[in-house]
Amino acid sequence: MKIIGEKINGTRKRVAQAITERDTDFIQSLAQKQTEAGATWLDVNAGTHPSREADDLIWLVETIQAVVDTPLCLDSANPKALAEAAKAVNKTPMINSINGEPERLEGILPLVVEHGCQVIALAMGGKKMPENTEARVDIIHQVIAATRAAGIPDKSIYVDPLLMTVSTNIQSGMIACDTIRTLHQSYPEVHFTLGLSNISFGLPARSYINRAFLTLAMAAGLDSAILDPLDRELRAAILAAELVLGRDRHCLNYTRAFRAGVFDSTKN
Amino acid sequence: MKIIGEKINGTRKRVAQAITERDTDFIQSLAQKQTEAGATWLDVNAGTHPSREADDLIWLVETIQAVVDTPLCLDSANPKALAEAAKAVNKTPMINSINGEPERLEGILPLVVEHGCQVIALAMGGKKMPENTEARVDIIHQVIAATRAAGIPDKSIYVDPLLMTVSTNIQSGMIACDTIRTLHQSYPEVHFTLGLSNISFGLPARSYINRAFLTLAMAAGLDSAILDPLDRELRAAILAAELVLGRDRHCLNYTRAFRAGVFDSTKN
Repeated sequence: MKIIGEKINGTRKRVAQAITERDTDFIQSLAQKQTEAGATWLDVNAGTHPSREADDLIWLVETIQAVVDTPLCLDSANPKALAEAAKAVNKTPMINSINGEPERLEGILPLVVEHGCQVIALAMGGKKMPENTEARVDIIHQVIAATRAAGIPDKSIYVDPLLMTVSTNIQSGMIACDTIRTLHQSYPEVHFTLGLSNISFGLPARSYINRAFLTLAMAAGLDSAILDPLDRELRAAILAAELVLGRDRHCLNYTRAFRAGVFDSTKN
Repeated sequence: MKIIGEKINGTRKRVAQAITERDTDFIQSLAQKQTEAGATWLDVNAGTHPSREADDLIWLVETIQAVVDTPLCLDSANPKALAEAAKAVNKTPMINSINGEPERLEGILPLVVEHGCQVIALAMGGKKMPENTEARVDIIHQVIAATRAAGIPDKSIYVDPLLMTVSTNIQSGMIACDTIRTLHQSYPEVHFTLGLSNISFGLPARSYINRAFLTLAMAAGLDSAILDPLDRELRAAILAAELVLGRDRHCLNYTRAFRAGVFDSTKN
C-alpha cells in the first residue's frame, strides 16, 4: 500500500495562508513529517487561484524539494500550471489528474508522455458525478483507450474511482470498491488510488469510517491512497489489513512496526 | 452483526477459578457487562473437566439467568452436559457446537431438534484441521446434509469456518473469508460465526488485527461473531464496517452510537 500524503493542499485554509505568506517553515514541516511517516509521494496543490496557480505551485515544489527528496504528486486541473511545475521538479512526478474530458486529456497527456509521469485518472466525464459503477467503468475504458493511444503504459495509470461520502449515498463505498474490482480484472497492470477521507465527509468519528473503508478497498485491489500519513491509527489499520489479506509474509512488516511503536499499546 | 459474548469461558484461568469457587458475583458481572454492551447471546463454557462439566454448566446457566435474560450459547462438545444444561435454560439456547464427526452429530442433533435450538457447525471433520477452503466447504456440505435430514432449518445453522491465526499461515484470514463467501452462495439462509480473536493468536497488537479481519469477514457474509463485546474499539469498528458496507440506512446506527459515546473522541 503506497501513500500519497494529502496535507500540502491549498484548498485547506491553513495551507492557503502559508502559500500566500510564503511561509517556508510551515510547508517544509508538512513535507518532512509526511515523509518520515512513510509517504511515497507528497500531493502538492496550490489552491484555486488561476492567475497565481503556476507561481504558487512552483514555489511549493521548490520549497518542498529544499528539505525532502520524496517524489511529488502535482495536483491541478490546469495544464499550463502543471507544465511549468513539471519543469521545476527534481524527480519524475505523478500528475493529479486527468479525467474523461477531452480538453483535459488533450492538455495533460502530452505532459505525461514528455516527462514519463505516473498519472491519476478520475472516473469522471464532465462536471456531473457518475452515479453508479457502470458509468465509472465506462469513463475509465475511454480514458485508458486515450492513454494507450498516447503510448502511456497501463502501469503508469492510477485510477481514482471517485469516492463519495456515505452520508449522501450509503452505497458510495461499495460503488468505489466495485469499480476498483471490475477495472482491476480488465486492466491488471493499472494501479488504483482515491481520496480516502471523502468517504466520511459530513459524519462524526470520521477516522473509524476511513479505516473500515480502506480495509475493504484494499481487498478490492486498491494499492495506494491519498490520505493523512500522520494519522497513526490509520497507518496501523493499513498494516493490519495487509496482514489479514495475506500480503505480509511471516508477519514481518506487522511485527517490525509493532517494535517501532506504530501501535497504540493501550489498544492491544 | 450479532455478537456472541465470549467472556464466560472456563478455559480462561480467571473464569475457571470463579467456577471452582462458585463466585457468583464474578460470573454475574461478566453477564451483565456483556449484555449492556450489546451481546445477543452469552457463550457459556464450563471448561474441560468431564466429570464436573454438566454440574458446572448448570451452575453457570442458573447464575447468569438470575441477573440477565440474554439468550445463552451452550459451549461444549459433550452431548450429556449439553442435554442437562439445555433443560436448565429459560430461553431457547444456541448450541456450540456440532462438526463433521458422526458421533458428535448423533449425540447433539437430537438435542437441537428437541429444543428448536440454533447450532454452530464447525468446518472440521475429525481432530485434524482442514488445510484449505475446499476441505472446509466439503465438511459443511456433509454437516448440512445431516441437519437437513434431521429436519433442522438452514436458518438455525451458524457455520464457523474455523478461523486460524495468521501467525502460522498468513492465508488463514482469506481461507475463512473464502469459506464464508462460497457457503453463503450455496446456502443463502445459513448464518456464519467465528471466534474472532483466533486470527491474531501469537501476535502483538491483536485488536488491530481482529478489527481488520472482522471488516473483511463481514463483507464476505459473516453475520455474527464470538468476541469480546467490552472491546469498545471493536464495537466502533463493527459500526463503521456496517456503514461503509452500505448496511446502515441514513447512517442512523452510526450517528446514534456517536451520540451515545461509543467512539473515542480523541480518534476523530
